[in-house]
Amino acid sequence: MIESLSPALDTLTDRLHRLPGIGRKTAQRLALFILRQDEEQVDALADAIRRVKRDIHFCSQCFNITEQPLCRICRDSRRDQKTICVVEDIVDIIAIEKSNEYRGLYHVLGGVISPLSGVSPNDLKIAELITRIEHGNVDEILLAINPSTEGEATMIYLSKMIKSFGKKVTRIASGIPIGAHLEYIDDATIGRAILSRREI
Amino acid sequence: MIESLSPALDTLTDRLHRLPGIGRKTAQRLALFILRQDEEQVDALADAIRRVKRDIHFCSQCFNITEQPLCRICRDSRRDQKTICVVEDIVDIIAIEKSNEYRGLYHVLGGVISPLSGVSPNDLKIAELITRIEHGNVDEILLAINPSTEGEATMIYLSKMIKSFGKKVTRIASGIPIGAHLEYIDDATIGRAILSRREI
Repeated sequence: MIESLSPALDTLTDRLHRLPGIGRKTAQRLALFILRQDEEQVDALADAIRRVKRDIHFCSQCFNITEQPLCRICRDSRRDQKTICVVEDIVDIIAIEKSNEYRGLYHVLGGVISPLSGVSPNDLKIAELITRIEHGNVDEILLAINPSTEGEATMIYLSKMIKSFGKKVTRIASGIPIGAHLEYIDDATIGRAILSRREI
Repeated sequence: MIESLSPALDTLTDRLHRLPGIGRKTAQRLALFILRQDEEQVDALADAIRRVKRDIHFCSQCFNITEQPLCRICRDSRRDQKTICVVEDIVDIIAIEKSNEYRGLYHVLGGVISPLSGVSPNDLKIAELITRIEHGNVDEILLAINPSTEGEATMIYLSKMIKSFGKKVTRIASGIPIGAHLEYIDDATIGRAILSRREI
């Protein structure tokens, strides 16, 4: 048995295998696929990879990703400048934008407070959020942090801090997902949904 | 809803989505992962992609991949030079090498004869195989083509041609995979396994 067909193929397989969710077999299949593509296609892929790292940085206001000083959302004057939605990560912005129900601005924390993982408030963009609240014309801060134990603690921490500036703090509702069956939903979610019941 | 956070991220997501088995959601997740990696890691991935295309070409003898004129297997004098194993594709070489049961050389056809897909014998490396058989000191040609309908037809075509040179032609056995249960094996495979039964 020979160890490998080509060092270049092995290197690419290794590199692809480092990506999340890409096993060794999949990495090899992808590497062979790339090998068979036209030079043009392959260059386009390599360029696209380099470009995200070279061109994308963080919005100076909300820490969303952007290729300009301010991100597309912060630049958009049609959006409600008086509401800030606080999220953990950029992927949460993508998810919320897809829902088409939010028209305000964002603030990306970059994680949640987690003493066990060594993440303190100073590691997150909390000071920057406070600055926006102090100096901007903000009416409402919507906390859209994932409702994990650490997410809950972070929301409590933030809400106390924000209320001290006399601002309205809201959080997205926890409850039964649309289309789900109660039978398959965990106790904590059902409990929260009952506590948060609304009159109809 | 904004259409996209960043054109660079969209381009990378599109490019990754073109890879086999990578859906749009996975492509986006990979693109965001790449965005968060160190510049060094990202450059290494982009380089590895460019390198496979730049450095790898086909072995002039067997059409395996290589970074030199002859592939590692053809260059290895310890391998049995008198046996050629004919495969459809490079991935088949990888699979056979892993089994550790074959010590001869290979010949990559580049596909199977398929009139429906417009693949004729001239589109495959059959003439090159015949040249190797005519001019080399070859004793046995082992056909390790996938036993699909078209694979079977290709093996029949090749065996007739090779026999006309007075060479021994063999094919890998079809049968029940090791560890499989008859209950879950298709009729054609069971039928073939019965016809190919051996005395023990």
